[in-house]
Amino acid sequence: MFFKCENFQKAGAFKARGATNAILSLSDEDAKRGVATVSSGNHGAALAKAAQIRGIPVTVIMPYNSAKIKFEAVKSYGAEIITCEPDQISRESALQEYVSKTDVAVIHPYNDERIIAGQGTAGLELMEGQPELDAVISPVSGGGLLSGTALAVKGMNSNTDVFGAEPEGADDTFLSMKAGEIVPNKRVDTIADGLRSQIGILTFPIIQRMVTGIITVTDAEIIDAMELIWERMKILVEPSGAISLAAVLKEKSLFQRKKVGIILSGGNVDLFTLPF
Amino acid sequence: MFFKCENFQKAGAFKARGATNAILSLSDEDAKRGVATVSSGNHGAALAKAAQIRGIPVTVIMPYNSAKIKFEAVKSYGAEIITCEPDQISRESALQEYVSKTDVAVIHPYNDERIIAGQGTAGLELMEGQPELDAVISPVSGGGLLSGTALAVKGMNSNTDVFGAEPEGADDTFLSMKAGEIVPNKRVDTIADGLRSQIGILTFPIIQRMVTGIITVTDAEIIDAMELIWERMKILVEPSGAISLAAVLKEKSLFQRKKVGIILSGGNVDLFTLPF
Repeated sequence: MFFKCENFQKAGAFKARGATNAILSLSDEDAKRGVATVSSGNHGAALAKAAQIRGIPVTVIMPYNSAKIKFEAVKSYGAEIITCEPDQISRESALQEYVSKTDVAVIHPYNDERIIAGQGTAGLELMEGQPELDAVISPVSGGGLLSGTALAVKGMNSNTDVFGAEPEGADDTFLSMKAGEIVPNKRVDTIADGLRSQIGILTFPIIQRMVTGIITVTDAEIIDAMELIWERMKILVEPSGAISLAAVLKEKSLFQRKKVGIILSGGNVDLFTLPF
Repeated sequence: MFFKCENFQKAGAFKARGATNAILSLSDEDAKRGVATVSSGNHGAALAKAAQIRGIPVTVIMPYNSAKIKFEAVKSYGAEIITCEPDQISRESALQEYVSKTDVAVIHPYNDERIIAGQGTAGLELMEGQPELDAVISPVSGGGLLSGTALAVKGMNSNTDVFGAEPEGADDTFLSMKAGEIVPNKRVDTIADGLRSQIGILTFPIIQRMVTGIITVTDAEIIDAMELIWERMKILVEPSGAISLAAVLKEKSLFQRKKVGIILSGGNVDLFTLPF
């Protein structure tokens, strides 16, 4: 197994890749007006950091129940924070409402080609180091990382299979792949706070075309994988970051004797409320 | 600051270096008779692992209050475990008693030239990567790592200062340096369970000759440094492993605008009893 350690990424998660790409892609005119997004934390922090580097204002709309450490990170990069209800509809409508009252550019956490392209660079670097991987596993939530990973990995080696790992308690991508169209999450119940979003209209078609399968896992399996990574690899990953390993451990027969690339997507975890 | 991450070392600590060197240095005849040591955990686990690789029997005498995770590690490598009282005198006498009844070779955790030479390879690798370091900080307990580090670092660049970092609750090396002779610990009270040993008769003269100073820190300072490393570097270190950073943060003026090498000595920590 080969691990892409995005917990060591700036701001603690792969989100820095897409956010930086999006902020640096803005025209000077657009940049001056500032940007806004909605995020439970990692994308918000990454966007705030990228905006700070370019010196432009940024507003992050966050579900009120986001992790405290993620609120603090967003604040530390100088962003304005607006809280909203945690469900998908409230999140999106809070963003739309804010944007309609202001003149800022929206940088959506995953339904944005600049974001997808940026997130894909994690898989690109993984394949540059290990071009002969049999499979690459990425978490899936809104699908920015998984669709970007699929584009990058398949572009480097069309024989490499790409899988998504998704919590059972937010398995809309798994259900959508089965149905052949986007199926909304009826309820969201998972410890993986970075994986509670609904698959996106830009990301789903890419995933449908390029991803071999979606593996769903329980919260208990996520926590076991997280503990294993902490104890044996001596690195911190958040629950969302551990899910790709949980998927491999669950579906051992799929990956036996294979060279497998695993994206550890982030390490922003509250040390005072560990699940184990 | 440049970190030498011995928490990523085999068996989770620098101890693998000395233990492996000592086991591989044994003649075939001596090896066959097996080896014994006394250790609160990391050296014991490292020696057990090295002995397992060479296929020879190993007995580890451990203070009964050693961390549970360290008992488990020693056991997992197939060692026989004998428990003893945690104080220095009981530890050494339990080892002597066992050896007198058997025919095994003693590999002491630090009063052994093969161990000192092995531990020194961490500093050697650090200097190979960064030959122009102004200072290198290593934890000090029995002195195997610090004396080995001093020999290696000074051998690579005589202008690099080497410091030891020691808990206030086990500050025998600090007091010994002041007195010019070995001063025993009157009492030992520190969270850093890898740093409770008494400075050794082989290691102290090397430290006296080559080490610029010993910096003592409180348990609270150790815990703060440990938390900082976990949160910002996203890696696990045990309290003993975080002490070198604690020393730098305490004596900022000594290290300002300097290139400093920091040995993170180990990462074997019980996830269920974190101090923060």
